[in-house]
Amino acid sequence: MTQPSLDVVAIGNAIIDVIANCPETLIDELGLSRGGMMLIDAEQATSLYAAMGPAREISGGSAANTLAGLAALGAKCGFVGQVAQDQLGEVFTHDIQAAGIRFDVPARPGNPPTARCLIFVTPDGQRTMNTFLGASHFLPPEALDEGVIADAAVLYLEGYLWDPEEPRAAMRKAIAAARAAGRKIAFTPSESFVIDRHRDDFLSLIAEGQIDVLFCNEHEMAALTQLDDFEAGLALLSAQVPVLVVTKGAEGAVALSGGERAQVGAEPVARVVDTTGAGDLFAAGFLYGHVRGKNLTDCLRMGAICASEIISHYGARPECDLAAYVAQRMG
Amino acid sequence: MTQPSLDVVAIGNAIIDVIANCPETLIDELGLSRGGMMLIDAEQATSLYAAMGPAREISGGSAANTLAGLAALGAKCGFVGQVAQDQLGEVFTHDIQAAGIRFDVPARPGNPPTARCLIFVTPDGQRTMNTFLGASHFLPPEALDEGVIADAAVLYLEGYLWDPEEPRAAMRKAIAAARAAGRKIAFTPSESFVIDRHRDDFLSLIAEGQIDVLFCNEHEMAALTQLDDFEAGLALLSAQVPVLVVTKGAEGAVALSGGERAQVGAEPVARVVDTTGAGDLFAAGFLYGHVRGKNLTDCLRMGAICASEIISHYGARPECDLAAYVAQRMG
Repeated sequence: MTQPSLDVVAIGNAIIDVIANCPETLIDELGLSRGGMMLIDAEQATSLYAAMGPAREISGGSAANTLAGLAALGAKCGFVGQVAQDQLGEVFTHDIQAAGIRFDVPARPGNPPTARCLIFVTPDGQRTMNTFLGASHFLPPEALDEGVIADAAVLYLEGYLWDPEEPRAAMRKAIAAARAAGRKIAFTPSESFVIDRHRDDFLSLIAEGQIDVLFCNEHEMAALTQLDDFEAGLALLSAQVPVLVVTKGAEGAVALSGGERAQVGAEPVARVVDTTGAGDLFAAGFLYGHVRGKNLTDCLRMGAICASEIISHYGARPECDLAAYVAQRMG
Repeated sequence: MTQPSLDVVAIGNAIIDVIANCPETLIDELGLSRGGMMLIDAEQATSLYAAMGPAREISGGSAANTLAGLAALGAKCGFVGQVAQDQLGEVFTHDIQAAGIRFDVPARPGNPPTARCLIFVTPDGQRTMNTFLGASHFLPPEALDEGVIADAAVLYLEGYLWDPEEPRAAMRKAIAAARAAGRKIAFTPSESFVIDRHRDDFLSLIAEGQIDVLFCNEHEMAALTQLDDFEAGLALLSAQVPVLVVTKGAEGAVALSGGERAQVGAEPVARVVDTTGAGDLFAAGFLYGHVRGKNLTDCLRMGAICASEIISHYGARPECDLAAYVAQRMG
């Protein structure tokens, strides 16, 4: 087994976030899923955008955000995802490449346009996401370079992309390539509704030993295990994955690995501005510690610190020198 | 003279700002004009964008930013500017309309694309702007609805748009329409280099009594009057315009009107994040006070307070409830 030249390669949605503040009342008026993620079609995207206040556009996408965090911490990363040949596709491509991440999937000509996520941020900092997936769901399996997968220590996959057929095939191909090369696979089911649609697939992957590091939040764990009891869920999953990481929002996170258990509280912040990307950046901090061989508690701490940076401002990509920010807080 | 239904109508560039942090050294490496505004062509825009870090996109344009501030304060506004039929044009249109500003100039099909301004923000919060004007410079005089101009208490014009022939013709047409309807005209020369190219035009407008409210910073006043002495410049211009407002960055601002003189210091902020739009929002606060009949000192205070909000975050459009922010600080 040769030494990989990348730390992490990820497959995920290539999305531009469109982020606007909104009053609490607008969430109900528009019938949105407060705090959640809802898929919308082109027509809904147009009408929701019209109902939205002045916004800012910042590159997003769950796994892409995690990579941006990893790259900012010093990891070498590659991304696989699909943009369209349009201005938002150029923005996504620029931002991920400017973060130092390898990304060379050609932009897709014609319709649909590059994916965008309309994010309504209420005064408490909670984000309500409405995603028009556009070109993102047309990632063809042929776009996947198995050599790149084999050349990364960890393959990271987001459940959001399990819905459409082509990217799912690309992810299955990537899993096989990673396994053949003896690489680790990290996975997040992304969202409870995604789990409802693909529980059998996800449980099979876990049971077959295809997942080395599993990230989820408490609601996703409950959806995955169909167990309401937090400890029972932990016991069930930790018996099947080498590393299990479960986040609990403001209550912090817990990790189990090889019989060891660690937990941390949330890192305090002066003001929660926008929670978009909190889970993505938690995964970034944890994975960075993991690939650098840190102990379980330090991995969790790094995750909590990265999440605290991202919720202090709009958008899900780090704004400060994340490596310095983490180093200062790790002490 | 009928009562106007709009407070302010503005003609300006329709631009999307692309804002990235950058180290101090990059400004010199790229040969940029630190703290200034440089016009770039499509080729330069491509190469500069490639050299830029991960960015955020926020609607901009000097006069459009001023209107966004005015609208946030409660003024009724209209905007005249040109976007292309592309995704960035849709973003600009959405953001200005979502701010409650009337904007109905049809998007221009084909090339060039919507204008964008590549803004490099150094750690001290200073912004260095590089503008690709694209469709913005193709605003045709026919796009100007003279009825809308006549229906606004104040016509606000930005000097940036004086360069290209078509928008200049549109602005001259607007000046005539505003004068015929007995409306006031406010003007900013925008930038010293713009003044170098159009000093005679600007001085003629002032000498002919076409400008009722003139906004400039100290460097622009020196370029306009060709007088190095601040007081001499003030004396020369204030003799020709009913209201003269001169900003001095961190040193505050001074205003002269009808023999009265007032001045304010800059409003303190916890941290200067990005100075983009400071002058635009100063103009917004001052003009809002002016159209609401406030005294000269209060107009200046409102300008300083609005500028303080905008430099506390990335981008030149207000992020908070600006009316509440100003009310709280005005006491």
